[in-house]
Amino acid sequence: MSSTFGTIFKLSTFGESHGVAIGGVIDGVPANIPLDLDAIQAELDRRKPGQSAIVTQRKESDTVELLSGIFEGKTTGTPIGFIIRNADQKSKDYDHIKDVYRPSHADYTYDKKYGNRDYRGGGRSSARETASRVVAGAIAKQALEQLGIDIVAYVDQVGTVRMEGTPDFNEIDNNPVRCANPEDAERMETYIREIRKEGDTVGGSIVCEMHHVPPGLGEPVFDKLHAELGKAMLSINAVKGFEYGSGFSSIAMKGSEHNDLFNEDGSTKTNFSGGIQGGISNGMPITMRIAFKPVATLIQEQTTLNNKDELVKMQGKGRHDPCVVPRAVPIVEAMAAITLLDFYLRNKAVQL
Amino acid sequence: MSSTFGTIFKLSTFGESHGVAIGGVIDGVPANIPLDLDAIQAELDRRKPGQSAIVTQRKESDTVELLSGIFEGKTTGTPIGFIIRNADQKSKDYDHIKDVYRPSHADYTYDKKYGNRDYRGGGRSSARETASRVVAGAIAKQALEQLGIDIVAYVDQVGTVRMEGTPDFNEIDNNPVRCANPEDAERMETYIREIRKEGDTVGGSIVCEMHHVPPGLGEPVFDKLHAELGKAMLSINAVKGFEYGSGFSSIAMKGSEHNDLFNEDGSTKTNFSGGIQGGISNGMPITMRIAFKPVATLIQEQTTLNNKDELVKMQGKGRHDPCVVPRAVPIVEAMAAITLLDFYLRNKAVQL
Amino acid sequence: MSSTFGTIFKLSTFGESHGVAIGGVIDGVPANIPLDLDAIQAELDRRKPGQSAIVTQRKESDTVELLSGIFEGKTTGTPIGFIIRNADQKSKDYDHIKDVYRPSHADYTYDKKYGNRDYRGGGRSSARETASRVVAGAIAKQALEQLGIDIVAYVDQVGTVRMEGTPDFNEIDNNPVRCANPEDAERMETYIREIRKEGDTVGGSIVCEMHHVPPGLGEPVFDKLHAELGKAMLSINAVKGFEYGSGFSSIAMKGSEHNDLFNEDGSTKTNFSGGIQGGISNGMPITMRIAFKPVATLIQEQTTLNNKDELVKMQGKGRHDPCVVPRAVPIVEAMAAITLLDFYLRNKAVQL
Amino acid sequence: MSSTFGTIFKLSTFGESHGVAIGGVIDGVPANIPLDLDAIQAELDRRKPGQSAIVTQRKESDTVELLSGIFEGKTTGTPIGFIIRNADQKSKDYDHIKDVYRPSHADYTYDKKYGNRDYRGGGRSSARETASRVVAGAIAKQALEQLGIDIVAYVDQVGTVRMEGTPDFNEIDNNPVRCANPEDAERMETYIREIRKEGDTVGGSIVCEMHHVPPGLGEPVFDKLHAELGKAMLSINAVKGFEYGSGFSSIAMKGSEHNDLFNEDGSTKTNFSGGIQGGISNGMPITMRIAFKPVATLIQEQTTLNNKDELVKMQGKGRHDPCVVPRAVPIVEAMAAITLLDFYLRNKAVQL
Repeated sequence: MSSTFGTIFKLSTFGESHGVAIGGVIDGVPANIPLDLDAIQAELDRRKPGQSAIVTQRKESDTVELLSGIFEGKTTGTPIGFIIRNADQKSKDYDHIKDVYRPSHADYTYDKKYGNRDYRGGGRSSARETASRVVAGAIAKQALEQLGIDIVAYVDQVGTVRMEGTPDFNEIDNNPVRCANPEDAERMETYIREIRKEGDTVGGSIVCEMHHVPPGLGEPVFDKLHAELGKAMLSINAVKGFEYGSGFSSIAMKGSEHNDLFNEDGSTKTNFSGGIQGGISNGMPITMRIAFKPVATLIQEQTTLNNKDELVKMQGKGRHDPCVVPRAVPIVEAMAAITLLDFYLRNKAVQL
Repeated sequence: MSSTFGTIFKLSTFGESHGVAIGGVIDGVPANIPLDLDAIQAELDRRKPGQSAIVTQRKESDTVELLSGIFEGKTTGTPIGFIIRNADQKSKDYDHIKDVYRPSHADYTYDKKYGNRDYRGGGRSSARETASRVVAGAIAKQALEQLGIDIVAYVDQVGTVRMEGTPDFNEIDNNPVRCANPEDAERMETYIREIRKEGDTVGGSIVCEMHHVPPGLGEPVFDKLHAELGKAMLSINAVKGFEYGSGFSSIAMKGSEHNDLFNEDGSTKTNFSGGIQGGISNGMPITMRIAFKPVATLIQEQTTLNNKDELVKMQGKGRHDPCVVPRAVPIVEAMAAITLLDFYLRNKAVQL
Repeated sequence: MSSTFGTIFKLSTFGESHGVAIGGVIDGVPANIPLDLDAIQAELDRRKPGQSAIVTQRKESDTVELLSGIFEGKTTGTPIGFIIRNADQKSKDYDHIKDVYRPSHADYTYDKKYGNRDYRGGGRSSARETASRVVAGAIAKQALEQLGIDIVAYVDQVGTVRMEGTPDFNEIDNNPVRCANPEDAERMETYIREIRKEGDTVGGSIVCEMHHVPPGLGEPVFDKLHAELGKAMLSINAVKGFEYGSGFSSIAMKGSEHNDLFNEDGSTKTNFSGGIQGGISNGMPITMRIAFKPVATLIQEQTTLNNKDELVKMQGKGRHDPCVVPRAVPIVEAMAAITLLDFYLRNKAVQL
Repeated sequence: MSSTFGTIFKLSTFGESHGVAIGGVIDGVPANIPLDLDAIQAELDRRKPGQSAIVTQRKESDTVELLSGIFEGKTTGTPIGFIIRNADQKSKDYDHIKDVYRPSHADYTYDKKYGNRDYRGGGRSSARETASRVVAGAIAKQALEQLGIDIVAYVDQVGTVRMEGTPDFNEIDNNPVRCANPEDAERMETYIREIRKEGDTVGGSIVCEMHHVPPGLGEPVFDKLHAELGKAMLSINAVKGFEYGSGFSSIAMKGSEHNDLFNEDGSTKTNFSGGIQGGISNGMPITMRIAFKPVATLIQEQTTLNNKDELVKMQGKGRHDPCVVPRAVPIVEAMAAITLLDFYLRNKAVQL
């Protein structure tokens, strides 16, 4: 009942990891935006499996087919439907977990909720669904570009390895971790390789910044810009926490330290506010940080529950990510772009 | 455009801090629930100003008047309208900030968005609006009680002072900080008094737990239970961050540490998941933590911007909270209750 | 669960006919519109009981109190909350129907749906709720006036008496029937007086026209302009049918007669389309007609059912309308205004 | 911005008549319903072109491909995505209308709204979109069958030819008109053949009945059952009017004639209410009637406007329906089913 995100620019997705296809409908696309179709596929390629040695080696081509809403190279204003066929529909790879609830996966909760279970690779709960978000996000990004707004995300922590160097946005896609600093990236990559050797996994975090956002985006009181960004990020698989601006570090700060004093042009000397005041953008860069838990699928034996209330041994196998954050970077950007474009369009109704 | 929260159990609020009244409409209230009206007022009293020496000494009686939807002591299923009159409508108290944007307040962003400014105490951006949420939350709590679900929140950090003792829920309302441990509460209270003497303010954090939530609540993929709880919390004034279960600490953890192993009854040995898997409750306690920034209104001189693009001196005055978290506890509980009841009702449509 | 109408300009109402008050929240009001508060009350007065000899003689002052969203005479862009106190809360007038389901009223269906019954004057099912719509509609009208759009409605049939003369919009409020032709109005008034003497009631119909609506309003495919107008009208108490443009008469027409041929300026020679093509306004006047059933409350004895499954005699009493259409004219205009303003605001998001 | 219909059971559609494909996402499908996939295709076949001599002879195979949400023959509760490929994507057939706005089509209004024009067969404004509704409706019907609810629609008027015989639901699909009486069907068929010979088109009307609907469905005050059914029907291409129960005929009736008196079992002796009181079903059959205008595409020369503000001659060609109602019958049933199932699911939240 909740496969739709957004109010005006609205994405509805469908599809399971091992069904026929995943895809979606994007409604509320502004008319007359020239679309670079290769750029959409390129975003999908940033998310796809098998792109480097430190991500899952599953083979999914993830080719998007756009079905409507585009005519003579431009958006028409009508909905864009799209599908991505699932290359791999072999359910027998999952026979060993058919009756077993994997620890810290959604197997148990889906079964309790729906009274049935699509055990093939997690079904609807699989992060495969996020490919549809990347398609919509890539289109939103192209609209935002026309407005001069840009969005960038990068990995700033993997397990215990934090980014310490200065971020250089040009470096992000030059390393498989998608860290914004090449030396830190190397340390992170080494760390992930070690973890993988242990058959283990590790968490991480992503920073996302939005630049040149005009003041005025965000809607009081419930749909505050950061509240909706928070929801957008928390809806991504494996996310456990969200903060913007000073975030959790603001707890220990005093007001006299934390207040962002103005310059004469309306900008502020500091940006603890993270570009948002009272839920509305103030023209400063919007900054946020998102925490991802370690992947639940281990290549280690675990004891778990089956659907007969028995504790059983299970052995993880398959081709899983030791750490999700490298592939999550384009997903974070996509959800940020969808949210921001939606608020841009909503804001047009503030005046007659 | 966003004064409504919820999908089935739905709250729409209105009102500015110094207008005639604030209030709201609660739609989708399940029928035939006996309502304890005193318990609703009691929740408002937990939030109201002047309740202790460490909160603002403003006098607001915050008496709610329920206008509809209740007949012969029970909910009828039709919407509950309510208002809370504003005792203090004197706008002259705010003449000194009429043309001035207070740092880290929403004055600047509202003006940029709407092209006008209700300077009286922050207008719609004031946390006074949250009193309406407490009314709806108190009603939601009574519905959840019938289902055996209970919600409790407490302060676990004020500035640099963290709660270190064992939480005892019975102690929460026995101290003005609303900390769950009496000794920690004393340390926090002392700290707040010091901060206030400096004319300064400080941040804090609140933990919220939900017990006896049945498995199955939460909707994939965008309206995950924790995503909607996150939005609910981030929509509260001054909130800067949200985490659930292991939260930000999961970044540095390995999957082998973080996975919650099952017991035979479907419960888990640990609860890093915070009671939610794949966005759906699993029957374990739901746990979350919310970060609040320091109050932006200081009793210190600050340099700021006016609406003629000039930097000017301003002197905070008035009766403001040195730290919001004691009064935010009932707000957090209210938003959690509204969210949970809404998901409970949504879940009824999963089967024919 | 459905007390909200609109997507951007959004009205949520509450209240029963004999509760403390009715009222609502209007969200998405565009900012900076000067509001004539007397004009709002004047619309309510057009709807209120006791205004003429042919409507119910109940005494309700229907005074609206606006609680928020207006500052220094203009809308701020934040929600407008309002209440109308119920003068008459005496429930004992309704003791005689406490256990009885009145024929063709909503007593039976509310009881079946909610498992309870607010028997005082129909409770939530009473047309009293429409007073809240008139408040929101009066505000929407003032916004539309700024855009040069005007809306007018009039009675074109009462029972078997159809309007035959030429409509003159200036005459509508000069007669108690609100017919647009004074001679027809007299015939209708005489007819209503006769019906009332019989203790009976009669149906009627209202025509509504919207002028100077710019082309482009309305959203394909489900939220077509006429589909939403239809829903708006059908949601008014006692409405049984809706048609726009040629309406039901188009059934018997040929395409060669029905097609509206263009003039060079984009206007059309005829207007069978009723100002709407493909769900989108084309710049021609929007025309629609709404059918109202006879009032179900009779001053005659009827046999009906009680809540013990027994057939019993009941005698209507009280002060009811013999025909609803005179008082329904401002309600029709209000719902048309709310719908049109909402589509105007939605249409702003079509382009970046 | 409005390609979604429904609140819980929710259909979002995409696609133009001559794009790659049309399709949609159905969210909120109740879990564990066994689906007969052939029955879905059979409904599409009732709507498809070329099925008889009196409908358009265009060749479209209209084969639906279901992509998700079904596992082991049953719905899982996750969204069902589907596509129907467009067989005919040749846009050159439409070169003659590329710059020309066809009279009483949506060409002009789409261009005014969006600032662009997909001239290929009407693009998004084409009734081809309704094939997606039929897919969702066929699934809704199967869910409603499990509840014992059935829906039937038939043609009761074509141009000036009204159905006069007794309706026999078994006859509906035995004649190409889909009239419920075989002799009337013949008269209608003859009439349509004559109209087509003239190169002309004609309007018609459809009656729809819903049987065994339990009392309690429908939501006061804006989402009344008949208001939402009205919107559903009015959103279908070419619909100009909607009435339920006594409809427009109630205008001329007296209350003493119109009131539906109860039987002891809660049923009523008459059914002028059309199964709905106060917007809520009362357990009696729900009845409604929908008016369709004559098809705007004629095989006759017409003078019309081009996009250079010039009046030009155009000659209709192609394979169009002389009368839409025979093919609209399954669309009416589909939208009724979608609406009814949605209200059934919404009603589950009335009690805790």
